[in-house]
Amino acid sequence: MNTDTENIDLYVEYWNAANYLAAAQFYLKENPLLRVPLKPEHLKPRIRGHWGSAPGLNLIYVQLNRLIQKTKAQFLFITGPGHCSSAILANLYLEGTYTEFYPEVSQDIDGLTLFCRQFSSPGGVPSHLSAMTPGSIHEGGELGYSLLHAFGAAFDHPQLIVAAVVSDGEAETGPLAASWQSINFLNPLRDGAVLPIFHVNDGKLSGPTIFGRMEDKDIAMFFSGLGYDPLFVCGDDPQKVHADLFKALDQSYLAIRQIQAEAKEKGLKAKPKWPMIVLRTPDGWTGPKEVDGVRIEGTYRSHRSPLMDARENPDHLKILESWLKSYRPEKLFDEKGKLREDLLALAPKGHLRMGASPYANGGSLLVDLALPDFTEYRVPVKQPGTSVSEPTHVLGKYIRDVIRRNPKNFRIFCPDETDSNRLSAVFEVTSRCFVSKIFPDDDYLSPDGRVMEILSEHCCQGWLEGYLFSGRHGLLVSYEAFAMILDSMASQHAKWLKLYREIPWRKPVASLNYLLSSHVWRQEYDGYTHQGPGFIDTLINKKGNVIRIYLPADTNTLLAVMDHCLRSRNYINLVIAEKQPSLDWLDMDEARAHCARGASTWLWASNDNGKPDIVLGCAGDVPTLETVAASWLLQKYFPELKVRVVNVVDLMILSPPAYHPHGIDEQNFINLFTTSQPVLFAFHGYPRMIHDLIHGRPNPARFHVRGYQEEGTTTTSFDMVVLNKISRYNLAIDAIKYALKSVPHLRTKGEELIGFFERKIVEHSTFVRTHLDDMPEIKNWTWSNPITS
Amino acid sequence: MNTDTENIDLYVEYWNAANYLAAAQFYLKENPLLRVPLKPEHLKPRIRGHWGSAPGLNLIYVQLNRLIQKTKAQFLFITGPGHCSSAILANLYLEGTYTEFYPEVSQDIDGLTLFCRQFSSPGGVPSHLSAMTPGSIHEGGELGYSLLHAFGAAFDHPQLIVAAVVSDGEAETGPLAASWQSINFLNPLRDGAVLPIFHVNDGKLSGPTIFGRMEDKDIAMFFSGLGYDPLFVCGDDPQKVHADLFKALDQSYLAIRQIQAEAKEKGLKAKPKWPMIVLRTPDGWTGPKEVDGVRIEGTYRSHRSPLMDARENPDHLKILESWLKSYRPEKLFDEKGKLREDLLALAPKGHLRMGASPYANGGSLLVDLALPDFTEYRVPVKQPGTSVSEPTHVLGKYIRDVIRRNPKNFRIFCPDETDSNRLSAVFEVTSRCFVSKIFPDDDYLSPDGRVMEILSEHCCQGWLEGYLFSGRHGLLVSYEAFAMILDSMASQHAKWLKLYREIPWRKPVASLNYLLSSHVWRQEYDGYTHQGPGFIDTLINKKGNVIRIYLPADTNTLLAVMDHCLRSRNYINLVIAEKQPSLDWLDMDEARAHCARGASTWLWASNDNGKPDIVLGCAGDVPTLETVAASWLLQKYFPELKVRVVNVVDLMILSPPAYHPHGIDEQNFINLFTTSQPVLFAFHGYPRMIHDLIHGRPNPARFHVRGYQEEGTTTTSFDMVVLNKISRYNLAIDAIKYALKSVPHLRTKGEELIGFFERKIVEHSTFVRTHLDDMPEIKNWTWSNPITS
Ligand SMILES: Cc1ncc(C[n+]2csc(CCOP(=O)(O)OP(=O)(O)O)c2C)c(N)n1
Ligand SMILES: Cc1ncc(C[n+]2csc(CCOP(=O)(O)OP(=O)(O)O)c2C)c(N)n1
Ligand SMILES: [Mg+2]
Ligand SMILES: [Mg+2]
Repeated sequence: MNTDTENIDLYVEYWNAANYLAAAQFYLKENPLLRVPLKPEHLKPRIRGHWGSAPGLNLIYVQLNRLIQKTKAQFLFITGPGHCSSAILANLYLEGTYTEFYPEVSQDIDGLTLFCRQFSSPGGVPSHLSAMTPGSIHEGGELGYSLLHAFGAAFDHPQLIVAAVVSDGEAETGPLAASWQSINFLNPLRDGAVLPIFHVNDGKLSGPTIFGRMEDKDIAMFFSGLGYDPLFVCGDDPQKVHADLFKALDQSYLAIRQIQAEAKEKGLKAKPKWPMIVLRTPDGWTGPKEVDGVRIEGTYRSHRSPLMDARENPDHLKILESWLKSYRPEKLFDEKGKLREDLLALAPKGHLRMGASPYANGGSLLVDLALPDFTEYRVPVKQPGTSVSEPTHVLGKYIRDVIRRNPKNFRIFCPDETDSNRLSAVFEVTSRCFVSKIFPDDDYLSPDGRVMEILSEHCCQGWLEGYLFSGRHGLLVSYEAFAMILDSMASQHAKWLKLYREIPWRKPVASLNYLLSSHVWRQEYDGYTHQGPGFIDTLINKKGNVIRIYLPADTNTLLAVMDHCLRSRNYINLVIAEKQPSLDWLDMDEARAHCARGASTWLWASNDNGKPDIVLGCAGDVPTLETVAASWLLQKYFPELKVRVVNVVDLMILSPPAYHPHGIDEQNFINLFTTSQPVLFAFHGYPRMIHDLIHGRPNPARFHVRGYQEEGTTTTSFDMVVLNKISRYNLAIDAIKYALKSVPHLRTKGEELIGFFERKIVEHSTFVRTHLDDMPEIKNWTWSNPITS
Repeated sequence: MNTDTENIDLYVEYWNAANYLAAAQFYLKENPLLRVPLKPEHLKPRIRGHWGSAPGLNLIYVQLNRLIQKTKAQFLFITGPGHCSSAILANLYLEGTYTEFYPEVSQDIDGLTLFCRQFSSPGGVPSHLSAMTPGSIHEGGELGYSLLHAFGAAFDHPQLIVAAVVSDGEAETGPLAASWQSINFLNPLRDGAVLPIFHVNDGKLSGPTIFGRMEDKDIAMFFSGLGYDPLFVCGDDPQKVHADLFKALDQSYLAIRQIQAEAKEKGLKAKPKWPMIVLRTPDGWTGPKEVDGVRIEGTYRSHRSPLMDARENPDHLKILESWLKSYRPEKLFDEKGKLREDLLALAPKGHLRMGASPYANGGSLLVDLALPDFTEYRVPVKQPGTSVSEPTHVLGKYIRDVIRRNPKNFRIFCPDETDSNRLSAVFEVTSRCFVSKIFPDDDYLSPDGRVMEILSEHCCQGWLEGYLFSGRHGLLVSYEAFAMILDSMASQHAKWLKLYREIPWRKPVASLNYLLSSHVWRQEYDGYTHQGPGFIDTLINKKGNVIRIYLPADTNTLLAVMDHCLRSRNYINLVIAEKQPSLDWLDMDEARAHCARGASTWLWASNDNGKPDIVLGCAGDVPTLETVAASWLLQKYFPELKVRVVNVVDLMILSPPAYHPHGIDEQNFINLFTTSQPVLFAFHGYPRMIHDLIHGRPNPARFHVRGYQEEGTTTTSFDMVVLNKISRYNLAIDAIKYALKSVPHLRTKGEELIGFFERKIVEHSTFVRTHLDDMPEIKNWTWSNPITS
């Protein structure tokens, strides 16, 4: 390989052009090449942007360009500090991809004017990277996920090298700190490579960074211990730093190719020692040295665009002008306002340009999953509520066959709970992925495994996001309670998707599918910390065209729901399902029809003949069990009362169609819930949410919701529903109370029965404390014709 | 110091007793010392618990006991793997503290029976550590926070050593990975010490761990790079491992004391190299070696209690019995069932026992803050809505003086945003804490700083929790959007508090106070990723007696709210406030009265004389501004319409009192919102929440809520409210629409005005895209008497 760094000056000139444009975007709405003296009216009224990291990012981009030119390798660029988007935009514009995606931003003075003007402006381009940015799958707004996205994109993309810039502030976050360990899951025989470039500029918002103040030797030990081979590039002399990074990149590239070749030749012996680069350059390098006697360059004070008041302050306007002119734009751009030809020649061409990487527009690479026929995994259901199966256990067989049929573009991501959530059937065809020491005694552990288990919900989500946005499919499996760890990541993902859907050149990607099990009602083993249904609440607030929430009540319904999710695009699908043996309600045909509708009246569980005194609504497996059992109790002991059971599997059907596309129309809503009868609704999660959803429906105040009330501990499963007042007995009592208002002639009997069920609750509480287990009549309950029994 | 390890056998015997009890709790409801042959009916019907880590925890506990006996040092114990609570409970019982807190669990056979029986049983003791556990400030249910809690407890407690057991699965999580860096914030001159004991048992739920499969030399490099001095203790021979840990603990203790002494003598020169211990012992050590031909000891299969079916499976019952008997309980406990005297003598006495540490019952150490008179920081308000101030900037001065008056028990925790959120006045009296290299050029950086800035929301929260639960006060300051990173931690904190409040011996601790600024409406600088009000939604579902949510609309109100929060106990207080220059509405007397009520009608902004055609409700500073401006527009252009403005500062007053203690009674609710008039409510967050809260209030369907609709980008601040349809113009339009139903005679004029305001919105949109700034009539708007203007 040619390691000639002699024409380094040319790269420095290209870099100057990028630095110039990175800065110009903050300030200029006119006069983009400073061809006339800078005046206040050329400046934007609101100066916005982040400068500190920009020169470092530009350096990396320019030197990667050179490496790509030389090697023709396929690179994807990830920018940890996404706030420095003006640097990336500058490079996209210079290399020509920006203009290809947005032709109005042409390669001339007019285009350049628009390019600068639109940055951070109303109706323009946001101050951070976003789905609007060509070549980007990573926003970098909420810091911490750059390396995870990089690894996610590299999995199963053997041709790809992902260059991931991690900033030193970002490196203080938890998710980023955990993600260095991702090399324990990267297999050089089937995956691409990740080249972390750790940008230690010693600045964050308003102070130095931890890594910025560590010695090189300590940083080197830290990364060596993790299993990397760190190369250091440090300094502030442009020529020298360019030359050093040039060499470090060449060396890294060679090391990557060597690791890959060696693995191919000799097989994978041990965790490879992957190269990485530690780049120490000054914060705000080449920017104003000092303003008003305060040092700027080389300090955190460069983080945001300096000289924000240049429009009002003539001295600052002067400094700004001479700073911008220091890059000598007149030498870099030709008469028309286009980058000089000899500089342009330094950038790669076509798809090799990082802004044009197909890996960054994952939909363009997406291949539909080859899905098995989910109905073949059905459990037979002769009579509702009489047979038992384990929903996620059965689903595991279906997922096993999804993996079998899609050996290169589907993975499971899970924080160490695949087995615990009973998806164990997947291990018949694959293993847990692990690229470190494996002992003969280990179960289902292999560098080829397609189950990505790391005890970090953040890593699971970050990897999956990278995997999806680069055009593949996946499933995240977690305990329900700890999905809340992902609240912010899921929110950011929903934001990205919302914008993504609006951009014509972004091709649809596979949905992010969550399967949450070991849920709030069945964590009586692990107790209160493990009981939290709050993840639904996070998703529910997101844009209606992005989120879907499913609460299948039994095995066949779960199968139908999951098949649907795996076929969908551009959504976040949340599926919450049971792992414990549970009663089956619907046979497969019924389950499919039920899912298609989103909610149905369960006639077999109702005795209302179209005129209910009370509607028992339910969503979620355990609330459904308790609701059906409550209906059974009422029909058995109180046949005069007319009860209807309505089960909801697609939560969003409750919402008026104006708020969510799945919302059913008013007539269908009335068909289920009537217009005015009381509804007692047993919900999987926090009860408030149902009140939200039905706002705008007829007579919302007649809905009475039961759900999780933040009561819990290690106890029996039935005790959990009693503690939260959502047990069959509580529901039966409340149903009678609400119904009696409309059937006052049944009052005496109703009140007697309320007393009876209240005594049942006391009986239960005594029983579990004495026998440490649930009453047989609860454990063994099944559906039967309540009238005859 | 005596490093004689000769009577190591005695410690091994104590350890056997702890291991025996740790296991016995899973299984036995009777026959706790196996004095009669084990029968199925002695076993619990539901066998529950986690075994893998228990022997390691017991080893550490026993050897720490020895160190405490020898040194009389004050130790606090933190158990990362909180699922292994039976080990900790065993030690608490053996050392006698458990019986002191729970006298019914006496030191005899009856007490022992109850002790075993209650574990993981209905009405008993949870399977994880909890607020019920003496000596514990850390639950360890949601993994990842052990080290953060340890450092939080050590800050400002110079006498204390916190021994923190970190498990190797836990170490894969983001928060834990970030938290190793906490030593960059630990000052040996004013803080205590943390001794991390990294327990690498190579097992998690269902596989090996990353660290478990790393070489010692790599682990050593990793920690040395971070700045620790790691000591390794490895093996599976009890005598030898006990002896090695004995020595390693002695050595660590000496190192800690030396660091502290040296700092005192010579001053703090550099970041000290703190000792830590890496302990490699087998998962499930001393447990069943093999069951049904499958290896158990030394594998992840020990994670949960093995032999769960021993009640039904006679072979497993045999294995269980011989396993339990292998500890020789008959030799360890005396006739009465009490631990042998010579063994008991090994445990420390009184407050030195880790179960009796006063640091673990923080309320017992809590000293009230000396608070300045907040009214002295007020801004003068002659006329509502005419003067401008920066709420958090003014608050900063108050907080500055809180710090000044409380130099040892109050800190700010912030992810690098203290300045950005405009609390900069605090730096007049303190600095950012940093115990690493500091350069002369640095601003406000010192090992003595009381502002804890690390770019990790997780670290901030974890430290603060540890700080609070060990008896101090604090404030967490964050951008609103990124508070969602803390959703799960805040939920876990709320769970801990909920239980904490129920336990008589737990003394009240200071509330966890959040100040969120740079909020959804004022992140037009950073754009869409920074716009997220979802943290409110997380808190709202928590127990009403634990959470409080405040949305002060101006500076004086913010001051009054914060004073209230800093005085409160056992709550989570959420305060969301503006940092940008904003109009002042209330003078200090009004602000105090307003806060005391939680919500008020703002008469000066209303023209309804007690009979509104429409009520304009608002909560949050920007929605309040838009609401008042909408009222102004309506009064100016449509004086016939009777408008009332109601501002809500304490969000929970909206809730019926049955759901939240702050809920105002029905009459007061009606006084504000009438019984039947339409209400247009402008809310800071996602609009759904208001529908939740008012469920149960008269005619909830008449409430129409506007809020954040997940629309946003980098734009002007007024464009943000327009994009989300909550601008003054949108509110005026909607107010007219809803009001016209009850005042049909005003229809013609109303419809004209709707057209007028709609054109205003178009005018705005064109203006910002042309001028890149808001219209002067928006930027310069202030309140004035609308009729005369
Ligand atoms: C999780 C998170 N917390 C806080 C912020 C607010 N914030 C934006 S930029 C920044 C400093 C970033 O420093 P660094 O990562 O080193 O970036 P660089 O120096 O390269 O600009 C902070 C704290 C954020 N974006 N994300
Ligand atoms: C954040 C989080 N994710 C998942 C879990 C579920 N879980 C409980 S224990 C466990 C394995 C813990 O392994 P380790 O931390 O090594 O504990 P030890 O081996 O000491 O028992 C897991 C994944 C959890 N408790 N917390
Ligand atoms: Mg930085
Ligand atoms: Mg472990």
